[in-house]
Amino acid sequence: MSVGEREIKKVPLLRGKTVVNLFFESSTRTRTTFEIAAKRLSADVINVDTRVSATNKGESLLDTIRNLEAMHTDLFVIRHSKSGAAYLVAQHVPPHVRIINAGDGSHAHPTQAMLDMFTIRRYKGSFENLKVAIVGDILHSRVARSQTHALTTLGVPEVRVIAPRTLLPTAVERLGVHAYTDMRAGLEGVDVIIMLRLQRERMQGARIPSEQEFFNLYGLTADKLRLANKDAIVMHPGPMNRGLEIDSAVADGPQSVILPQVTNGIAVRMAVMAIIMAGKAKLEKPEQSSIRKHA
Amino acid sequence: MSVGEREIKKVPLLRGKTVVNLFFESSTRTRTTFEIAAKRLSADVINVDTRVSATNKGESLLDTIRNLEAMHTDLFVIRHSKSGAAYLVAQHVPPHVRIINAGDGSHAHPTQAMLDMFTIRRYKGSFENLKVAIVGDILHSRVARSQTHALTTLGVPEVRVIAPRTLLPTAVERLGVHAYTDMRAGLEGVDVIIMLRLQRERMQGARIPSEQEFFNLYGLTADKLRLANKDAIVMHPGPMNRGLEIDSAVADGPQSVILPQVTNGIAVRMAVMAIIMAGKAKLEKPEQSSIRKHA
Amino acid sequence: MSVGEREIKKVPLLRGKTVVNLFFESSTRTRTTFEIAAKRLSADVINVDTRVSATNKGESLLDTIRNLEAMHTDLFVIRHSKSGAAYLVAQHVPPHVRIINAGDGSHAHPTQAMLDMFTIRRYKGSFENLKVAIVGDILHSRVARSQTHALTTLGVPEVRVIAPRTLLPTAVERLGVHAYTDMRAGLEGVDVIIMLRLQRERMQGARIPSEQEFFNLYGLTADKLRLANKDAIVMHPGPMNRGLEIDSAVADGPQSVILPQVTNGIAVRMAVMAIIMAGKAKLEKPEQSSIRKHA
Repeated sequence: MSVGEREIKKVPLLRGKTVVNLFFESSTRTRTTFEIAAKRLSADVINVDTRVSATNKGESLLDTIRNLEAMHTDLFVIRHSKSGAAYLVAQHVPPHVRIINAGDGSHAHPTQAMLDMFTIRRYKGSFENLKVAIVGDILHSRVARSQTHALTTLGVPEVRVIAPRTLLPTAVERLGVHAYTDMRAGLEGVDVIIMLRLQRERMQGARIPSEQEFFNLYGLTADKLRLANKDAIVMHPGPMNRGLEIDSAVADGPQSVILPQVTNGIAVRMAVMAIIMAGKAKLEKPEQSSIRKHA
Repeated sequence: MSVGEREIKKVPLLRGKTVVNLFFESSTRTRTTFEIAAKRLSADVINVDTRVSATNKGESLLDTIRNLEAMHTDLFVIRHSKSGAAYLVAQHVPPHVRIINAGDGSHAHPTQAMLDMFTIRRYKGSFENLKVAIVGDILHSRVARSQTHALTTLGVPEVRVIAPRTLLPTAVERLGVHAYTDMRAGLEGVDVIIMLRLQRERMQGARIPSEQEFFNLYGLTADKLRLANKDAIVMHPGPMNRGLEIDSAVADGPQSVILPQVTNGIAVRMAVMAIIMAGKAKLEKPEQSSIRKHA
Repeated sequence: MSVGEREIKKVPLLRGKTVVNLFFESSTRTRTTFEIAAKRLSADVINVDTRVSATNKGESLLDTIRNLEAMHTDLFVIRHSKSGAAYLVAQHVPPHVRIINAGDGSHAHPTQAMLDMFTIRRYKGSFENLKVAIVGDILHSRVARSQTHALTTLGVPEVRVIAPRTLLPTAVERLGVHAYTDMRAGLEGVDVIIMLRLQRERMQGARIPSEQEFFNLYGLTADKLRLANKDAIVMHPGPMNRGLEIDSAVADGPQSVILPQVTNGIAVRMAVMAIIMAGKAKLEKPEQSSIRKHA
């Protein structure tokens, strides 16, 4: 039984450890998942509100980190609008300080991809014969980037990305994926559909047409869903724009595993925290990765 | 001895449970009371700052709730500017998720009314022969609404509301109360005076005269207090506007039980949380209500 | 071994106690140090975000305190922009409620001075033969004021303050210090250099010249550092303005003890909290002060 389903949702793995949630970009949801995960591991959690933090007073990111590290904190969960921020930090802290990237710019969001892979494995058993489609703003999405990396690493034979041409990276095929601008063609015969959140700000950039037109072309409806395999699952990292990238009938329908993703997100983040704090993370050997171990 | 008075103010009733403070309307004070209450019950507490939460990104209240619930959280404390918000949520969560309404629009603020009833009972022994006056902005006050409901339910024979005509609901008598626009007449012979906080914003709406005039007519002074019974108690849900709805001499005087209300607020909220988590709340039988049980 | 260096960084000294961080002035860093210190002592910590607190609704500081105190909280850590705020509060709470001043206006910042004294003692052994220079905005600095007080109380024979004339208090010598406007003269032969943070806002007040000129005259560079004793230590309360009051080569150099100050800050604040909660603080006898006891 998972810790989240127990009467007392608490294990002492990180007792006496200090976890710092350092979110330079607002995200109540992701911050909350890490906070819950850390508290269920019995860690002390410090939320640093960076809207009022010293970095606003002109202090550099690394000075902020060095200071927090000097307080004998153990683990930083970092979200930052600049790509590479967590990696930069990881290169400058002593080895006993652990770093988790909770999203950096449009680069990566590894724990989101991990929980997505965990979810796919739960529902599909293995990755070997899957067709997976990722739909939406591929160009700006760190989630899509990490998912693509995870799916190809885990041996998924066919990863498709579906988006209007203006939201596809140039030469996206080099990432080992197949690109589609026609959603109906792209969904044909897939086992997993991952919808992305559309930032409404993109509208103003003239990169996409009206909301209504986007929904018509790239919104997941029951009608379009029928093009996928009968037992295809529907995923979304949240928060959803109902009626924009996904229809409520699908979001709340029998093929949706969107809420199980959230539940798995706590378990996967607890696992990641426990493993890196135990110093057993052998990230260079993919066959020992946390995803396989905990599936 | 109450938990709040012990050397170690902690009981393990909610150990391993996750309580989410979900305040869509700012209230440091009420949020703090629930946070302290939950921590003294040994729960993990997550404060969700809704100024930056996903609902700001266009997500609906119910999607926010469903997501938090998918994280295996146990209890939501919800404050929202829309009347009925907590009730709406309670209708859509599975039975193991508990909801506490910490104030919804101008509708209700049940735990405030409960702590007020607890306080009245402590000082007055029973409700059977009491005259209670509620004074101030009755029209907009969820506190007044919940108090009225509680007082009449508990059998208080005479509940009076005192306000300028513009701050009285139409047909207020239908709630089982007596309405007064003359404060001196309304205070005559009462045992309990409950002052309400006046939102200064009401001034601009031309619903009330100047601050000075409001204080003259509806501010509780030592002079007006003498019209009540000699052993009448003075209550206020806080935060007080000294010199607007209440004079400092009364607020800090011997008949004031305003600070005991705050102390009782922690105890009552601990009781409410513990009871609803234990699943023993039989709200349909008033003789077993938490108020009586814990008096 | 200090608690911060243990595997499980937790002692039960304040278990079941409620510590309230009441910051009327934003400071993520200082708030974080107190939060970590309190949690390592096993206290429950409540952060009160005063941007949305009742004091914003017109409630007075003392009403806010009285309310929090009525919730059976044990210790307030108060930062406020008004000089004397913590002292005012301390005069109005009952004796069982403890107050820590975490910075009040331009008056005092006692725990910062304590951790600085602790750091000096760690590196210099004793205070008896030291020359200490404090450099920067002496006029507005509560840190400088508390440090001066601590240094002279502990018997440091020569305390120097170095600043442009516009940033020196009038008649500063009455505090028992020697004032210098020439940094090179002031650094001659000192054992400890304490750099202060320069508020960039001062620039607009025309109190200081350009940033470049300030750095040339009062920024600590390797070149100027050579005027001090060979084993002089360099301190800074943070956050640093690199290239304004201090050069990176010095801040990160072998004589810098800036990060050890941060580490000591947790230990000293844990000690202060534990001592005042134990009620053993005999502040009137300086020979029993927390600084000596814990050195």
